[in-house]
Amino acid sequence: MDKVIKFALAGGDMRQAQLAAMLARDGHRVYVSYMEKAGEIAGTEAVSAEKAFSDADCVILPLPALDSAGMLNTPLSQKKISAEELLRLVPVHTPVYGGRLGKSFMETAEELGLQAEDYFLREELKIANAAATAEGAVQIAMEETPITLCASRVLVIGYGRIGRLLSAKLKAMGAFVTASARKPADLAWIKANGCSAVETATLEPLLAKQDVIFNTVPATVMDRRRLSLVKKGGVCIDLASKPGGIDFEAAAELGVKVIWALSLPGEVAPVSSGAAIRDTVYNLLRERGVL
Amino acid sequence: MDKVIKFALAGGDMRQAQLAAMLARDGHRVYVSYMEKAGEIAGTEAVSAEKAFSDADCVILPLPALDSAGMLNTPLSQKKISAEELLRLVPVHTPVYGGRLGKSFMETAEELGLQAEDYFLREELKIANAAATAEGAVQIAMEETPITLCASRVLVIGYGRIGRLLSAKLKAMGAFVTASARKPADLAWIKANGCSAVETATLEPLLAKQDVIFNTVPATVMDRRRLSLVKKGGVCIDLASKPGGIDFEAAAELGVKVIWALSLPGEVAPVSSGAAIRDTVYNLLRERGVL
Amino acid sequence: MDKVIKFALAGGDMRQAQLAAMLARDGHRVYVSYMEKAGEIAGTEAVSAEKAFSDADCVILPLPALDSAGMLNTPLSQKKISAEELLRLVPVHTPVYGGRLGKSFMETAEELGLQAEDYFLREELKIANAAATAEGAVQIAMEETPITLCASRVLVIGYGRIGRLLSAKLKAMGAFVTASARKPADLAWIKANGCSAVETATLEPLLAKQDVIFNTVPATVMDRRRLSLVKKGGVCIDLASKPGGIDFEAAAELGVKVIWALSLPGEVAPVSSGAAIRDTVYNLLRERGVL
Amino acid sequence: MDKVIKFALAGGDMRQAQLAAMLARDGHRVYVSYMEKAGEIAGTEAVSAEKAFSDADCVILPLPALDSAGMLNTPLSQKKISAEELLRLVPVHTPVYGGRLGKSFMETAEELGLQAEDYFLREELKIANAAATAEGAVQIAMEETPITLCASRVLVIGYGRIGRLLSAKLKAMGAFVTASARKPADLAWIKANGCSAVETATLEPLLAKQDVIFNTVPATVMDRRRLSLVKKGGVCIDLASKPGGIDFEAAAELGVKVIWALSLPGEVAPVSSGAAIRDTVYNLLRERGVL
Repeated sequence: MDKVIKFALAGGDMRQAQLAAMLARDGHRVYVSYMEKAGEIAGTEAVSAEKAFSDADCVILPLPALDSAGMLNTPLSQKKISAEELLRLVPVHTPVYGGRLGKSFMETAEELGLQAEDYFLREELKIANAAATAEGAVQIAMEETPITLCASRVLVIGYGRIGRLLSAKLKAMGAFVTASARKPADLAWIKANGCSAVETATLEPLLAKQDVIFNTVPATVMDRRRLSLVKKGGVCIDLASKPGGIDFEAAAELGVKVIWALSLPGEVAPVSSGAAIRDTVYNLLRERGVL
Repeated sequence: MDKVIKFALAGGDMRQAQLAAMLARDGHRVYVSYMEKAGEIAGTEAVSAEKAFSDADCVILPLPALDSAGMLNTPLSQKKISAEELLRLVPVHTPVYGGRLGKSFMETAEELGLQAEDYFLREELKIANAAATAEGAVQIAMEETPITLCASRVLVIGYGRIGRLLSAKLKAMGAFVTASARKPADLAWIKANGCSAVETATLEPLLAKQDVIFNTVPATVMDRRRLSLVKKGGVCIDLASKPGGIDFEAAAELGVKVIWALSLPGEVAPVSSGAAIRDTVYNLLRERGVL
Repeated sequence: MDKVIKFALAGGDMRQAQLAAMLARDGHRVYVSYMEKAGEIAGTEAVSAEKAFSDADCVILPLPALDSAGMLNTPLSQKKISAEELLRLVPVHTPVYGGRLGKSFMETAEELGLQAEDYFLREELKIANAAATAEGAVQIAMEETPITLCASRVLVIGYGRIGRLLSAKLKAMGAFVTASARKPADLAWIKANGCSAVETATLEPLLAKQDVIFNTVPATVMDRRRLSLVKKGGVCIDLASKPGGIDFEAAAELGVKVIWALSLPGEVAPVSSGAAIRDTVYNLLRERGVL
Repeated sequence: MDKVIKFALAGGDMRQAQLAAMLARDGHRVYVSYMEKAGEIAGTEAVSAEKAFSDADCVILPLPALDSAGMLNTPLSQKKISAEELLRLVPVHTPVYGGRLGKSFMETAEELGLQAEDYFLREELKIANAAATAEGAVQIAMEETPITLCASRVLVIGYGRIGRLLSAKLKAMGAFVTASARKPADLAWIKANGCSAVETATLEPLLAKQDVIFNTVPATVMDRRRLSLVKKGGVCIDLASKPGGIDFEAAAELGVKVIWALSLPGEVAPVSSGAAIRDTVYNLLRERGVL
């Protein structure tokens, strides 16, 4: 690292604590606040947000930055502070980075003349998270089935970032992988990557043969009718956020085992996920000419 | 195939002849014209373009559709016909598909009230072609080096469609693969796919270690200065179209072996490439509601 | 299955119960005894060992066949029977198969004129178990580290069955894999399989870079001196049986995290492991001309 | 390299010349004789065999060492010398290494009290050659078919060194790979490596689906009956030495395209093959305590 930056990190869980330690290890000066329960974080200085923000070149908030009440997300602290109070501590030219900042936060920042940016919208972080999610999904499949992935038959529904990385990992583990997609371009990618391709609209005939079915599509692709076609002992792993892609109620009634796996990156690979946030923040600073 | 279509194919090389045979094998009715030298193509009827076009549900022109003089590209025929004359034979509601149609062709078609579409602009065909190109690049690397790819060190410059598929194939063959890109998102993909990542702007220190350097970027990334860093015996394979990405003159002077590999899909895998055109035409017809 | 066989299974855990169900599903007649706690096993008949053995074409004992006191291994039963009593129930021409039969069992069988064979000595079962062990080791590495395997640095010590399959799986998951071996032939295999090779005797310089170190060698290759070179946060996973290959005491003192992973096949993939026993028994019967 | 050795190389083709250059590059002293047509080989000294052998620590003969008449194999020289004359030039304690030495050569060496060893019998060289052969076979398949290996169906007959490495490479290129073997252990390896397994005795039903069939078994597994089942356009590649494993006459009559690919390592990867000989010679010297 050619240039030393002063970072102020406020709030967040152990992933944020590890991010702080990594930045310090890279040679930067790191202030932490609202993280008392993390204990001493090597190479960092625990100071008040007020002091930290006034001196820092860059403020980093956690992922997600706010809790459901709009307060700074502070699982490692007993103190509370609202988004607005926090933003008022930031000098005008100091960039503020955080994850899932939300519309209200962005508006407040703009009113205060601050440059806030949501690092969770950055493509490179989405890809790194998809890699960790795909690996976590492989782990869950191993844990939740009494068979080896090697020589098993698996279906991956959806061929976006996660579907792509997951299919490749499953194939590499020796599984016979079919991936489904709707768009001709994605179907072409599936074939180009050496997997069997099927249109999502017509995957019914395949369901009875699959040992594990992974869903990555945020829409109910595995409805009651399709769930009824899953073979006895077959496991469904839902990686889709928000409403999920599996009718859980129907699955329970039909006796199909379903695992809804959310927020895998932070859970299965907090250090790699922290490193991905760090890399993204570096990219943001580089583009701003700070680094 | 649930529905029988009448196809009229005019012009093109053996890839087009194979496309005709494949469509016939799928159960469709296929007219061919301007392909006399191909001999009899199983399952097809050789008739005049006039007769064929007037009866067909769909006209398919070759890739590229026209020669440099703007005439139909007819390497398998001694007859010549201009784009305009040809288009005048097409009934108004019959769709016309061809590869690299060009602006002038599209304008003529529009003036005549015809629906022409360039299948070479379709993403699924680009991906299938990238897969064939990547495989052809692996073949060339094997042919042009006295070493095995297994245990070799290779660099892939650029991480678009071809760079992605090529890196994966090289890694799978046992090479130690570094891929370069400019955008943070592409660098994230490289890491997520298990390769070593480097920014294209700073790949100099790596050049001396590489047994093979593949370029996929259509800009002179391998200039004289960089070529002078390539190790003795190192081979450069340029997959970039148009001006290419290697300074050929400098390479010749420096004694660096360079292979400029263009149009690989039709050359190394004409049948797979023909099948990709067929699939794309089917998609076009499906979207139009014809199939 | 062209021919119906009468199998008598006695003792064992749920893996044995699943083996019984699989044999029944293949169309064979299956007697089970000493497995009361398994409940009803679909397609099988629970009868006394006396009745079962007298009618069966083949007797299958569990893996391991005996407990430490030399009695039949019966975790699913409250009844006990000695190896000798059990063998006296077997008609002279009925083959007896079991896992880890041991010298004393074999001698008793020979005295009684019986043909007993240890299926655990069969190469195909060892390979199938190695595949399940390798997959289980990948799972443990995922569970026990806060990083993704993708982009991690891992070392596999020993390149026998497990080392070979494990290295391939780790590489496929995106890790940078170094494997070590002593014999030139194994080092050649490592290179041929696209991994970095190092002699086990000289792996010290690599230790500080490894995120995970897997040992497959049943001798103390990871002694105090080597453990002291492992990087902070590095994890050691020992897959070697008997004494293990890691000095656990030294590791505890040095603060190196060690996981001793034994008997993985039955634990992480009981169904696949049961199927592997079934396939091996079929091979034994085929070679005997019974199947 | 901690110790400098004096090597005397006599005879051989360009692979031997490259071996000489590699040894010199490693810092050793290298004498070459019977290689005049190779021109000057960097770092080596061209002297008479008499002078070279008398001073050397180790004599290296080519692969194969002798021609069909029992003379030193000297394609790069116009001079001739018999095996016996050559051996008479070697001091008693100087080890002699060569490839395919043959019985008569070994006997002569023994009579003269010399320590001769055939490096071609070493397992590590066989494995390195298998890797080069497998890669060459992939290259031939790419060159000889009008399709991409990606998404093709291929069969590999025999699962020894070559079959194993070839299957893995084909799978990695995106092909759907079935491998055949006779022994249960090899069938278990096929499954453990994530390929489809079939017994060689019963592969008939699969033949009609295969785009490419690779044979590695040195016995006529592809006889007239089996060849008649190969699909139109299917290609057979024979990698088996000696009599080969395909009935060439029947194939010609049936119109099945067959390529008999022999001696691939020296042809497709002379440098890697030369390096493998060097590594093997180093191992031999190390075991003798010379290195």
